[in-house]
Amino acid sequence: MASSAAGCVVIVGSGVIGRSWAMLFASGGFQVKLYDIEQQQIRNALENIRKEMKLLEQAGSLKGSLSVEEQLSLISGCPNIQEAVEGAMHIQECVPEDLELKKKIFAQLDSIIDDRVILSSSTSCLMPSKLFAGLVHVKQCIVAHPVNPPYYIPLVELVPHPETAPTTVDRTHALMKKIGQCPMRVQKEVAGFVLNRLQYAIISEAWRLVEEGIVSPSDLDLVMSEGLGMRYAFIGPLETMHLNAEGMLSYCDRYSEGIKHVLQTFGPIPEFSRATAEKVNQDMCMKVPDDPEHLAARRQWRDECLMRLAKLKSQVQPQ
Amino acid sequence: MASSAAGCVVIVGSGVIGRSWAMLFASGGFQVKLYDIEQQQIRNALENIRKEMKLLEQAGSLKGSLSVEEQLSLISGCPNIQEAVEGAMHIQECVPEDLELKKKIFAQLDSIIDDRVILSSSTSCLMPSKLFAGLVHVKQCIVAHPVNPPYYIPLVELVPHPETAPTTVDRTHALMKKIGQCPMRVQKEVAGFVLNRLQYAIISEAWRLVEEGIVSPSDLDLVMSEGLGMRYAFIGPLETMHLNAEGMLSYCDRYSEGIKHVLQTFGPIPEFSRATAEKVNQDMCMKVPDDPEHLAARRQWRDECLMRLAKLKSQVQPQ
Repeated sequence: MASSAAGCVVIVGSGVIGRSWAMLFASGGFQVKLYDIEQQQIRNALENIRKEMKLLEQAGSLKGSLSVEEQLSLISGCPNIQEAVEGAMHIQECVPEDLELKKKIFAQLDSIIDDRVILSSSTSCLMPSKLFAGLVHVKQCIVAHPVNPPYYIPLVELVPHPETAPTTVDRTHALMKKIGQCPMRVQKEVAGFVLNRLQYAIISEAWRLVEEGIVSPSDLDLVMSEGLGMRYAFIGPLETMHLNAEGMLSYCDRYSEGIKHVLQTFGPIPEFSRATAEKVNQDMCMKVPDDPEHLAARRQWRDECLMRLAKLKSQVQPQ
Repeated sequence: MASSAAGCVVIVGSGVIGRSWAMLFASGGFQVKLYDIEQQQIRNALENIRKEMKLLEQAGSLKGSLSVEEQLSLISGCPNIQEAVEGAMHIQECVPEDLELKKKIFAQLDSIIDDRVILSSSTSCLMPSKLFAGLVHVKQCIVAHPVNPPYYIPLVELVPHPETAPTTVDRTHALMKKIGQCPMRVQKEVAGFVLNRLQYAIISEAWRLVEEGIVSPSDLDLVMSEGLGMRYAFIGPLETMHLNAEGMLSYCDRYSEGIKHVLQTFGPIPEFSRATAEKVNQDMCMKVPDDPEHLAARRQWRDECLMRLAKLKSQVQPQ
């Protein structure tokens, strides 16, 4: 395993997200130590990472400037947490979304780390104020929430604890940029962070429209994938407004009253009743039956699309 | 101008949307008569269409199986509405979003059309029950709302008047498929139809998050363009749920309580105050100044991205 000038990162937890992080950090030239309480998990992960990175190389989608062998040589398993954190600059926790489990791990890490390393959680929903409560090194703690699959979708939501030091946010932001991700700053913790709040805003209106018989589930999805979603793959909702008129101010002058009128017709928060869930599931299963094989094949197709979109986006970067 | 077996379509109004429709129908082998009260507008439109279709041909993005010359020969200007509708199968209205203006045009068309032709409006917000109120041929009326720019974004929302005949919806659905678009059925008219209701759900939460200082406008946009939006370019919000667990039912079991919890923290409908609009505009103008040249250049970049995404999507169609 090659030592590297870029620095050393520890991944705690070697599931799907942990493996993605390991590949991303190695692509940026970082030495990666993969820690897990299950030794067999580490071996499986290393084998899986090797296979996946070879496929990426064949598809011309391997990130970074190092060869696949150079990147693989940066990644190693480490069964001892004490050894793993020795000299690390960043520790990325990727264990299941269980608050007590994560708190136990952070308490253990808190007791053995120095005053420099960053303690980062991949959680998608647990609030930093709960995750990092009572830690001595709370200033060095942050949530860095990736989007699945992180190798193709670069966004990383940085969510600070109220006592997270600004330098912790800045250093994590710089680190994510260095490994080719697209970090953004959530200034204050909020339930669901930002990505899931936008996603749930969409899901709730989509659910109501299906429940009220306005649109079928599959047609609802077309409105996004063959309509709105195509623009959103390149520009966000606010810039979409900016371009749909002569800038944001003219958009607001022209459309804000109409938008408020439509928003006033929105129904209450959906209950996600079993009846509607079954109606939606039936329609979804026409396209993608919900057995493991069909779901896995469709996810693979999705990831193939994302890989090619990521390549396209790199080619069309504006001057 | 070549007569064609596919049939004859009339475009009323030769602005941006009218020109896009003309190009789309010609790509499907339809004879297109472009009508406008301003003769100079028709000449400008025909010239613009010629230029644009030549560019599309050079970029390898011309739709349909006919050559550019064959498609251009299908499109002609027609200064007389009576002549224009003679023998037409479909009339697509594309005049500005002014209810009285559109009603006047539909009343005029209503008095001269036969019992077969479809009367279709491109409106993005006017309710069919208002647009087609009192028309003799109301059964033949429908809204077919395209997404800008229609040549690259295929979605068409079909929104019926309460008295629209089912055959009118089915025939319009088939016609849109034939010209390579992706029609979907809005079963009952609703304010904003479906696309804008989803868009306004996103805009309202985005606006609140910016107004409350949770995220900057540009970082909010990254959450979509470098995160959610990449998936939404291929799969809709409901299928995203379906794949993010072991199908929709398992997703609902796992996440619906958490979603409801987050939705309960959403604030009221935003006022779109001048102060926040200025804050957002300032951030947007850092990237795209709101003068006509910069906006036009950015829209052109957006359309180039959409053109290439449309091509990528055609290549990755699932088996």
